[in-house]
Amino acid sequence: MKPKIAISVGDLNGVGIEIALKSHETISKICTPIYCINNTMLAQAAKLLDVTLPQDLELFEVEGEFTIEPGVVSKESGLYSYDSFMTAIKLCETKEADAVVTMPIHKEAWKLADLHFVGHTDLLRKYFNKEAIMMLGCPEMFVALFTEHMPLREVPSHIKADKITTFLLDLHKSIGDKEVAVLGLNPHAGDNGVLGDEEREIELAIADVNKQIGKELFHGCIVPDIAFTPSFRKNFNYYVAMYHDQGLAPLKALYFDESVNISLNLPIIRTSVDHGTAFDIAYKNQAKTLSYLNGIKSALSFINN
Amino acid sequence: MKPKIAISVGDLNGVGIEIALKSHETISKICTPIYCINNTMLAQAAKLLDVTLPQDLELFEVEGEFTIEPGVVSKESGLYSYDSFMTAIKLCETKEADAVVTMPIHKEAWKLADLHFVGHTDLLRKYFNKEAIMMLGCPEMFVALFTEHMPLREVPSHIKADKITTFLLDLHKSIGDKEVAVLGLNPHAGDNGVLGDEEREIELAIADVNKQIGKELFHGCIVPDIAFTPSFRKNFNYYVAMYHDQGLAPLKALYFDESVNISLNLPIIRTSVDHGTAFDIAYKNQAKTLSYLNGIKSALSFINN
Repeated sequence: MKPKIAISVGDLNGVGIEIALKSHETISKICTPIYCINNTMLAQAAKLLDVTLPQDLELFEVEGEFTIEPGVVSKESGLYSYDSFMTAIKLCETKEADAVVTMPIHKEAWKLADLHFVGHTDLLRKYFNKEAIMMLGCPEMFVALFTEHMPLREVPSHIKADKITTFLLDLHKSIGDKEVAVLGLNPHAGDNGVLGDEEREIELAIADVNKQIGKELFHGCIVPDIAFTPSFRKNFNYYVAMYHDQGLAPLKALYFDESVNISLNLPIIRTSVDHGTAFDIAYKNQAKTLSYLNGIKSALSFINN
Repeated sequence: MKPKIAISVGDLNGVGIEIALKSHETISKICTPIYCINNTMLAQAAKLLDVTLPQDLELFEVEGEFTIEPGVVSKESGLYSYDSFMTAIKLCETKEADAVVTMPIHKEAWKLADLHFVGHTDLLRKYFNKEAIMMLGCPEMFVALFTEHMPLREVPSHIKADKITTFLLDLHKSIGDKEVAVLGLNPHAGDNGVLGDEEREIELAIADVNKQIGKELFHGCIVPDIAFTPSFRKNFNYYVAMYHDQGLAPLKALYFDESVNISLNLPIIRTSVDHGTAFDIAYKNQAKTLSYLNGIKSALSFINN
């Protein structure tokens, strides 16, 4: 039997539902998608997209009705995207689905709907009360983020050996025995302390973790601007970045269209497209499906592990 | 008459001299290189490399003799690389050369020789008492660094509108009327202040500079992890990064071999290879010449401007 994947449809004023419908035939060959949306809303989206709905769509009806307005930040659309996501999570908890794949939500819309989460990962972290790990990428290159959505000026104070040790051990539990490049914080990885000394903390953590797992899987500190050069990438597919842009700027420079977002270290499997609601091209038949297809494939690979 | 380029030979225990000799025939078609090295040292390097020296090498003799030890950090080699560089600078000041192209020096070797500069750019800054701008890249993508070699934790306090304004005006004077993407400091460029507020300073500077030059050439704040995606790069070849790795990690991910280092806002033209001494492959005939050739070409394009 094919694995069941709960699809959180995202902000219906954005590109998510278009991507889902465009990809349905393709993904149905490898999984059974369960779309967390009701018939009325789906019919409305299909009409706007001028497409005929496939006969074999399996829905898990999420209550609520509102008028879709392509490209508009709205409270109603924000709330519906939240309900769709929560429904998908619960389908996983009750084992009616094996994983959740999420379409993008709009943060401002969530705010308007009085939903105060920075995003999916933040919500998952609070809902499960677990330190979810955010990893982005594609098979060629995955980047796990040690810190995520915080001002850059706050990052250095988070670089502490004990926290990094926990993070690396959790990561190892999630991805298994992979070789991982752990980046330094500072230019030239601190250049022996001349350009910052947080690397000491990172090195302590790496040594500790390798000792605990009994294998030299974590490598570092790697010099951040050398870590993503073609020759270095030959040796590593997994990276730990100390902060958001350190990992994501190179990742998106190299693999923007194919990347997905994976939440690790949680009781459920969740992957996501690695792009936003793209309000500027909503309902214009321009959205690319590659990230979504890779999100489905990544979810399947985690289900099979 | 072909432009004359003074070649600072770099640390002779590293790959510089191999690259220079390998490339001599090629670059001689477009410029007259003047090598800042004496006959004895050159003969020694040629012997180690097992190559016959071309007949047409023009030298400007730099005093000093020591035994080349491939891959070794040494005081003598550090001092010689400094003398070669200073000689090349002076050839430009006296108009005997039109530009300097530098091979890599080794910072530790400079320290051993009691030369306390972070690198070429730092020395140029102090020598000319001018705020040199460090720009790296290749015609597809140049990145100018607003801050360079400092611990990451010190970067946010440097993000001030007046300093950025001066920097952008200096950059505009050096590169002319180019469209430039100016990056934010924080993830998502601060997300309207939720993830940091230094973007306000950057935006003030951009507005000020565009007003002063009377054209909308500087654009931003650009979201750092979106700035280097393939579609964004279609619109921009020039970037300003707020810190070292923000610009250089994506640049080196995309264009490691072809990139060069250019010092702007100085009385002389100076370009450089964008790699280190590569001690691990010194005198093994493995060094790549692309960055050097592009360094020569970039110098020529600045001479012609």
